[in-house]
Amino acid sequence: MLELRLVQGNLLKKVLESIKDLVTDANFDCSSSGFSLQAMDSSHVALVALLLRAEGFEHYRCDRNLSLGMNVANMAKMLKCAGNDDIITLKADDGSDTITFMFESPNQDKISDFEMKLMDIDSEHLGIPEAEYHAIVKMPSAEFAKICRDLSTFGDTVVISVTKDGVKFFISGDTGNGNIVLKQNTTVDKPEESIAIEMNEPVSLTFALRYMNSFTKATPLSNTVTLSLSSELPVVVEYKIAEMGYIRFYLAPKIEEDENES
Amino acid sequence: MLELRLVQGNLLKKVLESIKDLVTDANFDCSSSGFSLQAMDSSHVALVALLLRAEGFEHYRCDRNLSLGMNVANMAKMLKCAGNDDIITLKADDGSDTITFMFESPNQDKISDFEMKLMDIDSEHLGIPEAEYHAIVKMPSAEFAKICRDLSTFGDTVVISVTKDGVKFFISGDTGNGNIVLKQNTTVDKPEESIAIEMNEPVSLTFALRYMNSFTKATPLSNTVTLSLSSELPVVVEYKIAEMGYIRFYLAPKIEEDENES
Amino acid sequence: MLELRLVQGNLLKKVLESIKDLVTDANFDCSSSGFSLQAMDSSHVALVALLLRAEGFEHYRCDRNLSLGMNVANMAKMLKCAGNDDIITLKADDGSDTITFMFESPNQDKISDFEMKLMDIDSEHLGIPEAEYHAIVKMPSAEFAKICRDLSTFGDTVVISVTKDGVKFFISGDTGNGNIVLKQNTTVDKPEESIAIEMNEPVSLTFALRYMNSFTKATPLSNTVTLSLSSELPVVVEYKIAEMGYIRFYLAPKIEEDENES
Repeated sequence: MLELRLVQGNLLKKVLESIKDLVTDANFDCSSSGFSLQAMDSSHVALVALLLRAEGFEHYRCDRNLSLGMNVANMAKMLKCAGNDDIITLKADDGSDTITFMFESPNQDKISDFEMKLMDIDSEHLGIPEAEYHAIVKMPSAEFAKICRDLSTFGDTVVISVTKDGVKFFISGDTGNGNIVLKQNTTVDKPEESIAIEMNEPVSLTFALRYMNSFTKATPLSNTVTLSLSSELPVVVEYKIAEMGYIRFYLAPKIEEDENES
Repeated sequence: MLELRLVQGNLLKKVLESIKDLVTDANFDCSSSGFSLQAMDSSHVALVALLLRAEGFEHYRCDRNLSLGMNVANMAKMLKCAGNDDIITLKADDGSDTITFMFESPNQDKISDFEMKLMDIDSEHLGIPEAEYHAIVKMPSAEFAKICRDLSTFGDTVVISVTKDGVKFFISGDTGNGNIVLKQNTTVDKPEESIAIEMNEPVSLTFALRYMNSFTKATPLSNTVTLSLSSELPVVVEYKIAEMGYIRFYLAPKIEEDENES
Repeated sequence: MLELRLVQGNLLKKVLESIKDLVTDANFDCSSSGFSLQAMDSSHVALVALLLRAEGFEHYRCDRNLSLGMNVANMAKMLKCAGNDDIITLKADDGSDTITFMFESPNQDKISDFEMKLMDIDSEHLGIPEAEYHAIVKMPSAEFAKICRDLSTFGDTVVISVTKDGVKFFISGDTGNGNIVLKQNTTVDKPEESIAIEMNEPVSLTFALRYMNSFTKATPLSNTVTLSLSSELPVVVEYKIAEMGYIRFYLAPKIEEDENES
């Protein structure tokens, strides 16, 4: 039997909003340690990994490991019916082919429950090894979202370069070229506005902007975002989820003769 | 001669916004007692009844009963030109085939008048007898609007059931089933947030959600909405209009072998 | 060499938003006195004239007169990447066929630069003589925008008439006729809400509403707008730009047998 009770139901609403454009159907995995997801986007270019640790739930009961196949759009539609302050409970009986979402308003005046059919979805779980990255950039998530949105009016491809001094986003398009440079800055009053760069060696990588824009749908989940870059690995775009876990997006860099001429 | 002066002109703007999607052309009836409307929606399934009592107007002069045929969309378009704080005056001379809407800004700096041709519209006035209902539910109008909107993403038909404990909205759709239950609650601090149920006998009725969603366009007119339900009668969805009157929507329930399987 | 540094970069963003629907390509003229533009709209009916005086810039260097041909939509796209509080600098080397826009965030954490190709655009500069107008009306810009927007739901053509008492906007359309009258009022507490009329002789002129609506895109630039009307001249719709200059739109009146019957 599965019963997960999340007081901050709003987090689950935001998680679904952040992945529903990227992923169509997905297996959500429940184990004693937490509620997680790993899924490729529909074009098999980007990977999403979600973790909500068991400790973050008010009540977490998962008697045996379960893989719950769900249509993400339908799940998002149900969660839209939950109020922002609602407590959300997920329930599934052993062997059942349905899952129930229950929403309780804070004053218990309104109780909703939605039952959804589970699906059989083929998926293979990729092992993602811990890796060393050439550079790790932590910045305000709204700033990253604005940069990706702004640059995508000029072209399809962004070059992200990191040096000790800052991180540069470069775009080359029909109407001209653009550079946006963010300087390392950890002395600001509000830590969520700081720009922190850990660099082992300089790195410059090219990415498809449309995936970056898709990842930034997770912006409401966290004030900050972390980009982990390495020339041999997919970039990791990570949004921490309160005390509970994270959502991580992985995207392989584009390989080109000359990255600046894409 | 007709001259109706309404200080809270905003009310008339909201009335038109709430009916313009439902009704195309309609006769507005003026008598010494008030300004009223009764009209079927264009598919002849739902009925709207509006009353603005003479006492609610700052000045109300109606020398003889008049039936003013107007295109509702055009009327709404004119009223959009009135500011939210404007005083609205309706004027028509006896025998004239036009009506004039005058809008005065609170400081009298801006005076607008729009003249509109009246139309001949066939309509029969239905007598709506006062009736006994099995159950009357009073609830926050915004909550009712959210429930109708949320459920309409799952299916076309809602089952509304009332018991002593609460009112239940049930939907069955391709993606699953959903229940939303509101509990009777009259002890809240703000009376407009209370959920009050008067029940003579339990009732469970099925309705087309698209009409319910249309009725909720009247939400800005009142903090609360009242549903009067009976198994032999159309439901009445009523929004009170300040001290002046009401707008009521009538919709016949769907008859089905098994209401829960629609 | 050209280098113009504008601390209130937001003004330039608003200028571009206000002309981008009217003008496709345009020559921006730089001289020692200021940064200016004169352009016809694409249908050659309306004229835009912009002036930003050199004194309004924090730093203004323009070694020789330059005419910078730019695509207005692309320029607006670049300026959208500037934050509202950013300092904007325009730079061009002598003889270069590109211009660079630099945006600096207030705390210097984020520096963006965009390079854009310049274009060769044929244009003739019209001399616009200072003229005597029959009437000059100054009114809140938001009020003027609302009137143009409201009236355009009824018809294509507005008659603007000025008498000593006020200014009248008249429209005649399929659904009826409308008049909006604003009274002279200079005694209000807030000067930006006053309606001031200077009149030498009464005037009544007919204009295409769609251009008026286009001009009102400049509303965010100023709380007030000035209409200068004369029966022999195009109307001038002017928005002052802070301490720096203005944007002026010119539109010839429609000539008709009977203006009220259009």
